[in-house]
Amino acid sequence: MSEPIAEITHRLEFAAAHRLESPDLSEAENRALFGPCFGLHGHNYQVEVTVKGPVPARSGMVMNLVGLRALMLSEIFEPCDHGFLNDAPLMAGRISTAENLAIAIWEKLAPMVSEQGTSRISRVRIFESSNGYADYYGPDSQ
Amino acid sequence: MSEPIAEITHRLEFAAAHRLESPDLSEAENRALFGPCFGLHGHNYQVEVTVKGPVPARSGMVMNLVGLRALMLSEIFEPCDHGFLNDAPLMAGRISTAENLAIAIWEKLAPMVSEQGTSRISRVRIFESSNGYADYYGPDSQ
Amino acid sequence: MSEPIAEITHRLEFAAAHRLESPDLSEAENRALFGPCFGLHGHNYQVEVTVKGPVPARSGMVMNLVGLRALMLSEIFEPCDHGFLNDAPLMAGRISTAENLAIAIWEKLAPMVSEQGTSRISRVRIFESSNGYADYYGPDSQ
Amino acid sequence: MSEPIAEITHRLEFAAAHRLESPDLSEAENRALFGPCFGLHGHNYQVEVTVKGPVPARSGMVMNLVGLRALMLSEIFEPCDHGFLNDAPLMAGRISTAENLAIAIWEKLAPMVSEQGTSRISRVRIFESSNGYADYYGPDSQ
Amino acid sequence: MSEPIAEITHRLEFAAAHRLESPDLSEAENRALFGPCFGLHGHNYQVEVTVKGPVPARSGMVMNLVGLRALMLSEIFEPCDHGFLNDAPLMAGRISTAENLAIAIWEKLAPMVSEQGTSRISRVRIFESSNGYADYYGPDSQ
Amino acid sequence: MSEPIAEITHRLEFAAAHRLESPDLSEAENRALFGPCFGLHGHNYQVEVTVKGPVPARSGMVMNLVGLRALMLSEIFEPCDHGFLNDAPLMAGRISTAENLAIAIWEKLAPMVSEQGTSRISRVRIFESSNGYADYYGPDSQ
Repeated sequence: MSEPIAEITHRLEFAAAHRLESPDLSEAENRALFGPCFGLHGHNYQVEVTVKGPVPARSGMVMNLVGLRALMLSEIFEPCDHGFLNDAPLMAGRISTAENLAIAIWEKLAPMVSEQGTSRISRVRIFESSNGYADYYGPDSQ
Repeated sequence: MSEPIAEITHRLEFAAAHRLESPDLSEAENRALFGPCFGLHGHNYQVEVTVKGPVPARSGMVMNLVGLRALMLSEIFEPCDHGFLNDAPLMAGRISTAENLAIAIWEKLAPMVSEQGTSRISRVRIFESSNGYADYYGPDSQ
Repeated sequence: MSEPIAEITHRLEFAAAHRLESPDLSEAENRALFGPCFGLHGHNYQVEVTVKGPVPARSGMVMNLVGLRALMLSEIFEPCDHGFLNDAPLMAGRISTAENLAIAIWEKLAPMVSEQGTSRISRVRIFESSNGYADYYGPDSQ
Repeated sequence: MSEPIAEITHRLEFAAAHRLESPDLSEAENRALFGPCFGLHGHNYQVEVTVKGPVPARSGMVMNLVGLRALMLSEIFEPCDHGFLNDAPLMAGRISTAENLAIAIWEKLAPMVSEQGTSRISRVRIFESSNGYADYYGPDSQ
Repeated sequence: MSEPIAEITHRLEFAAAHRLESPDLSEAENRALFGPCFGLHGHNYQVEVTVKGPVPARSGMVMNLVGLRALMLSEIFEPCDHGFLNDAPLMAGRISTAENLAIAIWEKLAPMVSEQGTSRISRVRIFESSNGYADYYGPDSQ
Repeated sequence: MSEPIAEITHRLEFAAAHRLESPDLSEAENRALFGPCFGLHGHNYQVEVTVKGPVPARSGMVMNLVGLRALMLSEIFEPCDHGFLNDAPLMAGRISTAENLAIAIWEKLAPMVSEQGTSRISRVRIFESSNGYADYYGPDSQ
């Protein structure tokens, strides 16, 4: 019998400043497009990384959470917490929206998770506040 | 390279009274079917609307949240907050369950969101309390 | 050595309709005083009852939570859940504000808690929504 | 016109002790695989069961929540709350991870829900803490 | 019989950038004192303002929440949301800690609330994140 | 002018097993007194430690949160997380109720906090679940 497929999701919170600003737009255009988010402000970001894969009877786990948490701490928390998101290498060349942060985290972590075994990242979710969140399901999602 | 596809979700809370009652049933049948929900009561409803679409490099956004929030305020909050859900035009002809509220909000907002660009509503979620929620993924979901 | 004094707080949620309306005021006056809350609406109410008293070494408990929970179920949940708060006997003669609900619950439960032992109710807190709450500390508070 | 398809999710919380331990491994191997989770500890588990199905105009409900809640109380809460998860019959032959708890609950409840009508369980989600959760979408998910 | 004394608390959330920096200290001293908080970062701040006073039978309210909310919007949300807290006039001459934000809000709002009637601010609470909060009970607290 | 007095509260979560059992009682008496809590179970405990003191203009802080957090990690998290609370040295000679855990944490941390400066612990709050919490305000509270 084949192993059941399940998902695990791990959450982590960091605090950062950011502002939405496109280098290709004038100040007036930025203000028109991003409204109040063009101003310097900040958030407690909650990041959820979901990993999908088989659950072996031997371990009962899709992936060891200790390993996933270590990746999230070194690749997300350390470079972003108590910092300015627009300056984080993770966000280089991207406007610092929640959508782009989800995409950037996916692109950074997906190959690292794949290297550790047969499980794969299936979703990255970013809460900027209690008012909502952004989801990215990878480059193959339609 | 094609634009990545992502989702954004916006939340909004309103307070309303409601009761579950079918005009096609007798009082005894209503009571049997809906139990305590046949009585007049109320909730703090949390509504989540999710929009899915491409993330252009220029904006980094699936859809401008200011626009989505404005739609949710005018079409959901204004007509429902501090009101009696059974009397809201949005719910006309529907029993005021969480499932039906999700469907009604989808039907109201989906064409409005589609008019604003290439993104589409992909889910409406309704929390009636902290005990659970209803989801609607549109008329094409199976 | 005397027993340490501590507090325990138990929470319970119920769903009810209500409206703010004073029988001594005209409709116009009610509307002016209570604004949108004059309309029929509803909430998921969260009730917290706090009991203060000595912690005996024998039990380690200010009061048995099973007993407190039973009182809260019979005196608050049963008569109010899935009902219309303005019609609840608990609220007879009172405008159904959160402040008055806290006061009414105190007056109902305080003598019952006192009968069960040496502990006393020290606070009743009512959340009408996630936007805030009302507290009542009893008739001796200033 | 066919009935719309929607989902409802019901949540329930129980408190239990557990430890991650494989009977096929030595103590040292268990400690290496499960780390601190090899030690006896516990959680407030939050269980979400999602049911998917058509929404008939007559009831406006995917499934009667009273019926779903009754199943969750008798099959999950009663045998697990204030107990040791490793000893619960539900978990017999499984390591007590969140993934396995989701799978066990699915296998227990799915046939019972199917018997009650045309709706089907579509997801079981387990929160062990505020740091994350496990999801199981059934034996056909890939 | 005198009117019962109760409290109401209203919550509001805003998003802002800040950094902890004393103008009287060198960069090295600032870094030693404030650690990672010396770096530019940000939060979703939750502000709770509590007002204490008599509950008249005529209104059942310590204070009209509409009036309190209006004050909080104009004096806290408007000048701070989507801004840089260190530059907000409210925080002029103060290091932007949660303690100082609570004190500044008290000093700004207390006279305004007192002007509106017999109730008084009794507490300002600031959540910078889900990890904790600061409370200020006014200049007379000891 | 004297320095304003404020409070800061820091939260921390740990997961532990426990059971309520008095060594002075028979099994039947324990079962009668503690009900389901006599059985081995567990919780995600949330611990809040509140510190009260003057806010110097130089730092704007009642106490450095880094220092408080370090104490809470070494004295509470390390010895209790992923463990059996009844066996924790912190709880030696005490029934493992939430009230007693609050008292034990106060007695352990209060002298350590006092050594670091002029601020003092003013409250320890323990959440065993989302249903409530216990508070201890120290040996001088009445």
